[in-house]
Amino acid sequence: MNASKLEPDIPLAERLLERLREATFDGVGITRASYGEGEQFAHGLVAGAGRDLGLEVETDFAGNLFLTLAGRERDGRRLLVGSHLDSVPQGGNFDGAAGVLAGLAAVSAMARAGLRPRHDLAVVAVRAEESCWFPASYIGSRAALGTLPASVPDEVRRADTGRTLAAHMAELGFDPEAVKRGARSLTPANTRGYIELHIEQGPVLETDGLPVGIVTGIRGSTRRRTARLVGEYGHSGAVPRAYRRDAAAAFAEFAYRLEERWIELEEKGEDLVVTFCTVATDPGRAAFTKIAGEVAFSLDMRSISPETLARMDRAVAELVPEVARRRGVRFDLGPHSASKPAAMDKGLQDGLAAAAEAAGIPCRRMASGAGHDAAAFADAGVPAVMLFVRNQHGSHNPREAMRIEDFAQACRALLGYLAAAA
Amino acid sequence: MNASKLEPDIPLAERLLERLREATFDGVGITRASYGEGEQFAHGLVAGAGRDLGLEVETDFAGNLFLTLAGRERDGRRLLVGSHLDSVPQGGNFDGAAGVLAGLAAVSAMARAGLRPRHDLAVVAVRAEESCWFPASYIGSRAALGTLPASVPDEVRRADTGRTLAAHMAELGFDPEAVKRGARSLTPANTRGYIELHIEQGPVLETDGLPVGIVTGIRGSTRRRTARLVGEYGHSGAVPRAYRRDAAAAFAEFAYRLEERWIELEEKGEDLVVTFCTVATDPGRAAFTKIAGEVAFSLDMRSISPETLARMDRAVAELVPEVARRRGVRFDLGPHSASKPAAMDKGLQDGLAAAAEAAGIPCRRMASGAGHDAAAFADAGVPAVMLFVRNQHGSHNPREAMRIEDFAQACRALLGYLAAAA
Repeated sequence: MNASKLEPDIPLAERLLERLREATFDGVGITRASYGEGEQFAHGLVAGAGRDLGLEVETDFAGNLFLTLAGRERDGRRLLVGSHLDSVPQGGNFDGAAGVLAGLAAVSAMARAGLRPRHDLAVVAVRAEESCWFPASYIGSRAALGTLPASVPDEVRRADTGRTLAAHMAELGFDPEAVKRGARSLTPANTRGYIELHIEQGPVLETDGLPVGIVTGIRGSTRRRTARLVGEYGHSGAVPRAYRRDAAAAFAEFAYRLEERWIELEEKGEDLVVTFCTVATDPGRAAFTKIAGEVAFSLDMRSISPETLARMDRAVAELVPEVARRRGVRFDLGPHSASKPAAMDKGLQDGLAAAAEAAGIPCRRMASGAGHDAAAFADAGVPAVMLFVRNQHGSHNPREAMRIEDFAQACRALLGYLAAAA
Repeated sequence: MNASKLEPDIPLAERLLERLREATFDGVGITRASYGEGEQFAHGLVAGAGRDLGLEVETDFAGNLFLTLAGRERDGRRLLVGSHLDSVPQGGNFDGAAGVLAGLAAVSAMARAGLRPRHDLAVVAVRAEESCWFPASYIGSRAALGTLPASVPDEVRRADTGRTLAAHMAELGFDPEAVKRGARSLTPANTRGYIELHIEQGPVLETDGLPVGIVTGIRGSTRRRTARLVGEYGHSGAVPRAYRRDAAAAFAEFAYRLEERWIELEEKGEDLVVTFCTVATDPGRAAFTKIAGEVAFSLDMRSISPETLARMDRAVAELVPEVARRRGVRFDLGPHSASKPAAMDKGLQDGLAAAAEAAGIPCRRMASGAGHDAAAFADAGVPAVMLFVRNQHGSHNPREAMRIEDFAQACRALLGYLAAAA
């Protein structure tokens, strides 16, 4: 048969998305904790669908799932297509899952058509991509690629349970010891490339009126997840301004002036986003009629430029002592974490663009504002690329949206590329 | 005997303060909830001490306690000396209690010396002064004076229990129905005046090196206890600045720019304090890697000038729509509450100043930054005054401090005035 006439198995993807929504709706949005109940359900569901399609099903030491359509030449180098299956708390159904099901929709079409690819082609479901559960980036993919620091499994704890990553992995039957000794299930030698479809998570495609984007690179980050400002509690009516050590007022100045630096860099054309994701006085100690003696906050700054990230780190380093000295408060910025910007593979970008063009699908090239497993693959030397699907209400929130016809367009581009490579 | 030789009964006050500390220490500070366990213990302790001294013990319909030393001329008009016995959560031991025990120390000295005052003299322990428990000011004193709105008992709920003021009053055997029909246990006709000793709650006396202050007036307030900023949750990495509705960034601008207005007015010589007592993203919905879609905050602004309070209300009214429009967020300022500045009685001020001077006690006149029951008495037409005692670490916090020798100096001035009036 003519591979260019193949249609992705969208009904399969829709059916599985609906099953996922039913099983992991929390009353407000979707919750699939990394190495937790919701993610585990999703892995079981996808593995079952792979078995139904006659794919080879395997799980590596970190719990990453691979559904392989055997190639004509089994040279031990697979092309991977997938994403992750966990979600933020009260998030949306598509962030992550859409990419796994897109891979399944494409491979299902090929398997049902009896189209055997030249080389092994695998749908992959990566574990633990959402760093809100464990404070570390790309846990599942970096574990597989051997780039997750050996200290992580015993050091990071899940936000809701307080238990370590190692404990959660072991509980599900995986092998944290293999992670700690740097085992690798994925290498540039056994992996041809990694293609990840994902909802955009930003408003660019929606604004531009395009269903699909091809990603040129992924923003890196510099982060303070558990920062604190410490002042002194006092009577809100009785302490003149000059005698205060007001942590809430200090936070306001710090956040407002850091935003001013952001605006300055943006006006110079630099790429940057700056977010105080959480801010809170101490619920047990702060009260009405008290000056706030402490404020906890988190700070996430991202850019495609390492120089811009360095400039913002310097801005923080300059503001902190100035605000602290003038206001008599103390900053405890907590642990610093960072990820590098990652470039996507030019050959894969061009291949997907050609497939989209051949199918008459309008698309554009663009940077990714969010981090993705594709960055971990690129960093480990595996050629990687991403396809973005237009999304109406942002991501990491229950209103996250994706039109199924846009998803189908992106799956057509993906399948077109895979079939051409086959 | 010569009344000017009388010494206040400081050992009694010290003993009772120690009993209070032992019974209401919560592991961090002192907690005596309004119409709750700690306040109730304190009332029982003080009533017992009054009985031991042979004073007449009575409790009014709102639970306010009166310990009366009968005068030679029982004309039905008492002079009251006292304060409140509740505390903020994790607060200090002296805020409120010191004033009740100062009254007891003075009356004890007179009773033990067999000195009968000309008119009835009563130590008063007022209920529910700390508005962090129930969102209303001066509950006990306003209930007694008939100025607490009839709607309050059924409308306000205690922060920790969620139950109404009426339910808490009834539980302790008091009569919320009497409050609702505007009953009065205290009137200008039955009350000669109200003298309240209190720790300063601010750093002025400590800075000036003075043990005692005589209060000229009490700051009024304009307050928003339950304000919210509503934006939209989104991905912290993927939404460019212009597309955001970031509630945390909007809070920072609002708080920082309101502080700028404060500084402008202060530079013009106006009296003002502005406090964002609490600020918090939603612990259930906010998370790292999400833009904050909502921030809750409270705002307390105080001044001795009604015009300054009106200027700050206008500043809020101007900033809110400007910040909301530019950032695509919505302010919900919640209920507005306010209290008027209150002038202290000039005759009582002069009497206390003369007593302090006669006893060689250094003191100054000053405004009170905090609100006190004395404001409710003044508002109801009862002459009122306050004595401040130097305090090293502010108030409404566990480090609140008061040197017993400073307390004794203030008690000497108080007793000198009472004995002279006797």
